Amino acid sequence: MKTVSFFIIRFLIVGNLLALFGNSFLADLAAFPMASAINCSAFESPNQKIKTKPKKSLGARPALPSPVWVIGSYDKDGRPNAMTSAWAGICCSRPPCVTISLRKETYTYGNILEKKAFTVNIPSESQAAYAAYFGSVSGKQIDKFSATGLTPVKSHLVDAPYIAEFPLVLECKLIQTLELGSHTMFIGEIIDMKADETILTPEGGLDVEKLKGFFFLPGRGKFYRYGDFLGDIAPLAEKIKTKK
Amino acid sequence: MKTVSFFIIRFLIVGNLLALFGNSFLADLAAFPMASAINCSAFESPNQKIKTKPKKSLGARPALPSPVWVIGSYDKDGRPNAMTSAWAGICCSRPPCVTISLRKETYTYGNILEKKAFTVNIPSESQAAYAAYFGSVSGKQIDKFSATGLTPVKSHLVDAPYIAEFPLVLECKLIQTLELGSHTMFIGEIIDMKADETILTPEGGLDVEKLKGFFFLPGRGKFYRYGDFLGDIAPLAEKIKTKK
Repeated sequence: MKTVSFFIIRFLIVGNLLALFGNSFLADLAAFPMASAINCSAFESPNQKIKTKPKKSLGARPALPSPVWVIGSYDKDGRPNAMTSAWAGICCSRPPCVTISLRKETYTYGNILEKKAFTVNIPSESQAAYAAYFGSVSGKQIDKFSATGLTPVKSHLVDAPYIAEFPLVLECKLIQTLELGSHTMFIGEIIDMKADETILTPEGGLDVEKLKGFFFLPGRGKFYRYGDFLGDIAPLAEKIKTKK
Repeated sequence: MKTVSFFIIRFLIVGNLLALFGNSFLADLAAFPMASAINCSAFESPNQKIKTKPKKSLGARPALPSPVWVIGSYDKDGRPNAMTSAWAGICCSRPPCVTISLRKETYTYGNILEKKAFTVNIPSESQAAYAAYFGSVSGKQIDKFSATGLTPVKSHLVDAPYIAEFPLVLECKLIQTLELGSHTMFIGEIIDMKADETILTPEGGLDVEKLKGFFFLPGRGKFYRYGDFLGDIAPLAEKIKTKK
């Protein structure tokens, strides 16, 4: 009964968020099937060493920590728009590519198909309210740049605007489109990456601690900060190699 | 001259890392073109308000903070393997899907094509050495589960193993494959998400602070921790909406 009540409460909360956020990246919340609150018996096979407690099944839902990427695009009249996407990541090294997945209902969807280009704009934690806002209203109804006062800069490389005030941007050329279901995947080739000097190391690399970025936790509508340095990968791997 | 020296040093470091990591997800480092160390004049257009300093062009490189996903798979003989992937993310809500991109040279590439399935295993910071190790050696040469002592658990839902000791796992069925260049993208439908009770909220949602996860910074070979709570998205967006 407790579980059922939780799900009802959760449903109501998600419903309110959806009402609040409208045509939003938070609408992705609606896609989560309710968790099947059962424990898994996978560990109970006598052929396997049982070292840990069984895991709990949470159902088929995409609820992993995800990036907060603000996508810049122009509409057919050249009006700039920005929307927040979390279904996103790097997907190739040569050519360097990113993938972003958008619902057809978004204004950005049509813009990218029209202009074959977009930018990825990475906000700093002091800009979290903008990222939340860009994900909560649609460019179909609102000129989001006018509303926020942020500056759209026309890229010299692709037909899309980037956000002057955001510290890190990618300029991308659309190279593939893939229908997946609720979302359409756009694959963009990175033509250039640009950054504010303030977030670079003395050698010109990205300094994550200066970027002060953050990520999105789907299902709970929350942003979390990026944290501190954990370790260099080479010596971490060496720990296991030399243990053998 | 200073810039040139830096690039030579950087090249040597990357070379050493590649030698060290062999057939590794760190080999993705090799894909980074060297930065073109020029400032961008995009802001200098008289039609645009100049509010910030010009950005520095870093070249066409995929160097954004990225997830650390350990991919579980079986080879044709049913032997489990694990490799670390950072070119990855959620890509659809309905059906819930993830995308991972792998080089053809990896053992996991053939395994996924053979079994049409994989798991995504999310490590906690105490398991960072395993994630580094899984990304630094190939399953073609080494039985990584024997080498680490970690436990591969046969999924009841897909033909792939997940890692018992890792706190969060997704079981995925391959639904699409896409050639992109250096990397092949695999799109997997999430059939179930499973988690240790210790990383859940009292209501059964994912508690990022209990997960103690971490992310990868490409180009610098470093892991960074996930940090603390920044804010709820709805009230953050409201700040901008009510400012108008």
